[in-house]
Amino acid sequence: MQIAKVIGTVVGNQKEPSLRGSKFLLVRFVDENGEDISNGYEVAIDAVGAGVSEWVLVSRGSAARQIEGSEKRPSDAAIVAIIDTVSVENRLIYSKKDHY
Amino acid sequence: MQIAKVIGTVVGNQKEPSLRGSKFLLVRFVDENGEDISNGYEVAIDAVGAGVSEWVLVSRGSAARQIEGSEKRPSDAAIVAIIDTVSVENRLIYSKKDHY
Amino acid sequence: MQIAKVIGTVVGNQKEPSLRGSKFLLVRFVDENGEDISNGYEVAIDAVGAGVSEWVLVSRGSAARQIEGSEKRPSDAAIVAIIDTVSVENRLIYSKKDHY
Amino acid sequence: MQIAKVIGTVVGNQKEPSLRGSKFLLVRFVDENGEDISNGYEVAIDAVGAGVSEWVLVSRGSAARQIEGSEKRPSDAAIVAIIDTVSVENRLIYSKKDHY
Amino acid sequence: MQIAKVIGTVVGNQKEPSLRGSKFLLVRFVDENGEDISNGYEVAIDAVGAGVSEWVLVSRGSAARQIEGSEKRPSDAAIVAIIDTVSVENRLIYSKKDHY
Repeated sequence: MQIAKVIGTVVGNQKEPSLRGSKFLLVRFVDENGEDISNGYEVAIDAVGAGVSEWVLVSRGSAARQIEGSEKRPSDAAIVAIIDTVSVENRLIYSKKDHY
Repeated sequence: MQIAKVIGTVVGNQKEPSLRGSKFLLVRFVDENGEDISNGYEVAIDAVGAGVSEWVLVSRGSAARQIEGSEKRPSDAAIVAIIDTVSVENRLIYSKKDHY
Repeated sequence: MQIAKVIGTVVGNQKEPSLRGSKFLLVRFVDENGEDISNGYEVAIDAVGAGVSEWVLVSRGSAARQIEGSEKRPSDAAIVAIIDTVSVENRLIYSKKDHY
Repeated sequence: MQIAKVIGTVVGNQKEPSLRGSKFLLVRFVDENGEDISNGYEVAIDAVGAGVSEWVLVSRGSAARQIEGSEKRPSDAAIVAIIDTVSVENRLIYSKKDHY
Repeated sequence: MQIAKVIGTVVGNQKEPSLRGSKFLLVRFVDENGEDISNGYEVAIDAVGAGVSEWVLVSRGSAARQIEGSEKRPSDAAIVAIIDTVSVENRLIYSKKDHY
């Protein structure tokens, strides 16, 4: 999975029928220190109710369909968790509580 | 999924039988501000009737086969939605109505 | 799918039994103007009888197995169409007839 | 598979139900000499009890679900082995014993 | 598939049970002229008995599991053929016989 920041939303009404009801969030991939990764954005289906500026875990490929209701959807990216903390060698690098 | 602009079409008559009847659109990947991404093009099967210069959502990998009629097709990219709006931190970055 | 030029062949006799009888073509990925893409080559199974210097469409990943006889083959890339034309904003960029 | 160093952990309580009980480790990809690879990090499910600073093998894509209990999980990366040695042309490049 | 040179081996005893008995080879990706590709290495399961310095074909993703005994293994890369020759526009670029 990759760490990403939710930065916005994408809306499209004319779409594959099986995608109706899906919420598309625009996320920017960051490294473990929160630095942007070049060209690193994705449009992912939100499976956990994430909000703008939250750090999330994004799964891509067929893993994105292993979500209840998404098994037959043509989606290749999904937000599968909202991140509470990121630690590197036992140092807390990111904590959701400090950001909200 | 990735955001892309439809820029053209690709035609090939000598092809895998299961691809007959598929429409191949040439798309260029852009970031959320509409800037081209280097080397970022794809030939995708059109599942939603997209037209040249429209912004679309492209799914890749096995997700591209989760489209009615495409389950057994050797296609690894599909246009799954036509984008109406892209918003970043509640600012409208792109709106189809402004472009057409 | 990606646009590629067929540039050669790869032969290997000691291989996975299920690959016997497959023809491996060496292709170089190009952008829509026919310019090489850096590091952009692939060895793909030929499913449509493509020849050296022809422009072709290459599918990768599990899509490459959606070809009759390839369902159980350990191949991750296949040539699925020979390109006749590539058009960008209704301008003809490439036409097979002009090249042969 | 890729060689990676375990550098930390990621915790997220609000997640896809099927991911409950999974341990997310933060790994940095390295080449065979242990040099970091740019942008090369991943958040992977730990299947073998790896610890911080250990060298591990990471599988990505649908392979990451071929682990007991993960078949239906939306995870696209898993740690599948702890590396004991890496040899290049019969020279020992890395040995776990020398590091611990 | 990609062309690669076998450069070494990786050993890890603490691993996913289904990987027991698999031989992990370290390969470096090369272009058709044998030039290294930056960051281009992989750890692949050997399915054809390849040896150090041989040129091989590597399949990645779910294709790597289409090998007898690997269907349920969490491996995302496999060596599926040992290359005898590589030809570009009918010129022999590489021949195993010339190297051994």
